[in-house]
Amino acid sequence: MTNSDEAVQAITDAAVDSFRDTADPRLRELLQGLVRHLHGYVKEVRPTLEEWEYAVEFLTAVGQKCDPTRQEFILLSDVLGVSMLVETLNEQGGGTESTVLGPFHVVESPERVSGDSIDLMGVGKPCVVSVRVTSADGTPLPGASVDVWQCTEEGFYDVQQPDVQPLGNGRGLFRTDGEGRLWFRTVVPSHYPIPTDGPVGELLGATSRHPYRPAHVHFIVEAEGHRPLTTHIFVADSPYLDSDAVFAVKDSLVVGFPEVDDAEAAREYGVTAPFRRADFDIVVEPETETEPANHNQNENEKDAR
Amino acid sequence: MTNSDEAVQAITDAAVDSFRDTADPRLRELLQGLVRHLHGYVKEVRPTLEEWEYAVEFLTAVGQKCDPTRQEFILLSDVLGVSMLVETLNEQGGGTESTVLGPFHVVESPERVSGDSIDLMGVGKPCVVSVRVTSADGTPLPGASVDVWQCTEEGFYDVQQPDVQPLGNGRGLFRTDGEGRLWFRTVVPSHYPIPTDGPVGELLGATSRHPYRPAHVHFIVEAEGHRPLTTHIFVADSPYLDSDAVFAVKDSLVVGFPEVDDAEAAREYGVTAPFRRADFDIVVEPETETEPANHNQNENEKDAR
Repeated sequence: MTNSDEAVQAITDAAVDSFRDTADPRLRELLQGLVRHLHGYVKEVRPTLEEWEYAVEFLTAVGQKCDPTRQEFILLSDVLGVSMLVETLNEQGGGTESTVLGPFHVVESPERVSGDSIDLMGVGKPCVVSVRVTSADGTPLPGASVDVWQCTEEGFYDVQQPDVQPLGNGRGLFRTDGEGRLWFRTVVPSHYPIPTDGPVGELLGATSRHPYRPAHVHFIVEAEGHRPLTTHIFVADSPYLDSDAVFAVKDSLVVGFPEVDDAEAAREYGVTAPFRRADFDIVVEPETETEPANHNQNENEKDAR
Repeated sequence: MTNSDEAVQAITDAAVDSFRDTADPRLRELLQGLVRHLHGYVKEVRPTLEEWEYAVEFLTAVGQKCDPTRQEFILLSDVLGVSMLVETLNEQGGGTESTVLGPFHVVESPERVSGDSIDLMGVGKPCVVSVRVTSADGTPLPGASVDVWQCTEEGFYDVQQPDVQPLGNGRGLFRTDGEGRLWFRTVVPSHYPIPTDGPVGELLGATSRHPYRPAHVHFIVEAEGHRPLTTHIFVADSPYLDSDAVFAVKDSLVVGFPEVDDAEAAREYGVTAPFRRADFDIVVEPETETEPANHNQNENEKDAR
């Protein structure tokens, strides 16, 4: 009676049941669901033992590729569309659309004040980005924290080029002013390939997928009494807007970066003409009443694990 | 239209479609199935962003715990019942039942000849294990390779105690004689906890699962023209036969290790009385005609990735 349907089902039942005594009901739900779906996948595709061993080796290599400035598991989640799915399922509507965190939010952004430049290299064509943060009803939100990170015109983040870029290049942690506004000087980021020198790059290569992301600037916005928002603005004339390797493009996040050839405006912003310019309004959703409690509960769960 | 069912489905569709150009049809099937099932899991349990981040950190820690003698991803696959499921789905019936490889087949077993002792410590109560390897029709299989590994009476494998045990303790690579037989001297292994000093141990702790496996001896049997077999024999009077942490027990693999108090028999085997004794017949299945080709195909796929 080897390999009978009953013997196979008994394994799944035993694995699901093994989590029956989990004290935290949410953890129990997450793990029993994981077992059911993982087993469902295995039963559908029936991996050979060699394929299973290959999967173990692949996941091990993904973990071993991680270090303090490289997060290969986020990259794997990204290229499988899982990160974008989780982000989208956590939206409540009414605010700016969210998108993936990505693997490069791995160092703290230096604190900056409105008007600062986050381009520490000073060799590119200048760009001025202005942001306004409001609540869902249009009320400006002063004192909101806006964490910004982006790559260079060559398509590299600071942590990818420790010998070329100073750490903190392309990054800034700002606060909005009394009108919910801030602006900063930077360069227009380039489209770029996600890192391909690891197992995720091998996966893309073996499946004839290109590794490119359209040009974008990352934001995390946090305002008191509001849900945190993780999003990008995408550069409207960038290639790969239609085939982002991590499925993160939403139409509402695509923003023009027009060239401005106006010496007076350039002087006002402390740049030289011509320069590029982007404006972006960010709307964050008020926290619902039950949410802070839920959030604390999750934090406690994490501690308990 | 954030978070609408259409927006969510569009992400899954795009992620599945991204693998459309994969040249190897089996790799395409494995990855598109993975995306569908992973997304199905995420849609069902709707992880918060904190839960997703926790999962990323957990998987990263699993990968980082691995080293040449520690395989934490196999352990994770084991405690979720996935390893046992894959093994069972790959059985064809007609032979000895298979069970999990486990995470301790990480060094080569030293070559031994029938009658050798694999107990290099020499401090435990002696045990004689006899094995006979036959084909499904009962024909004895001479020259079959039988790879054996087990823990000590204290429940540790050699690689877990590099300062206590010589590498190769409890391991042996044997060949069957003209009658398909071999025997070796050893100690009776103990039940033991799987390693709990890593993320998988944390998982078991957080879910009130015990980490124990019933006492067992591992075997990999390879005979020409036959399917390789990975299995255990379990010691019949061991605790935890009903709740193996990795779901690997099958009734047909539970074997008595009776005590023998017979000085003459002891002399014959080169041990002292009383000693423990186990006999186990291993039946391997002939390879089917199409299998060698399939096997080669899988090997080629691996190379191509």
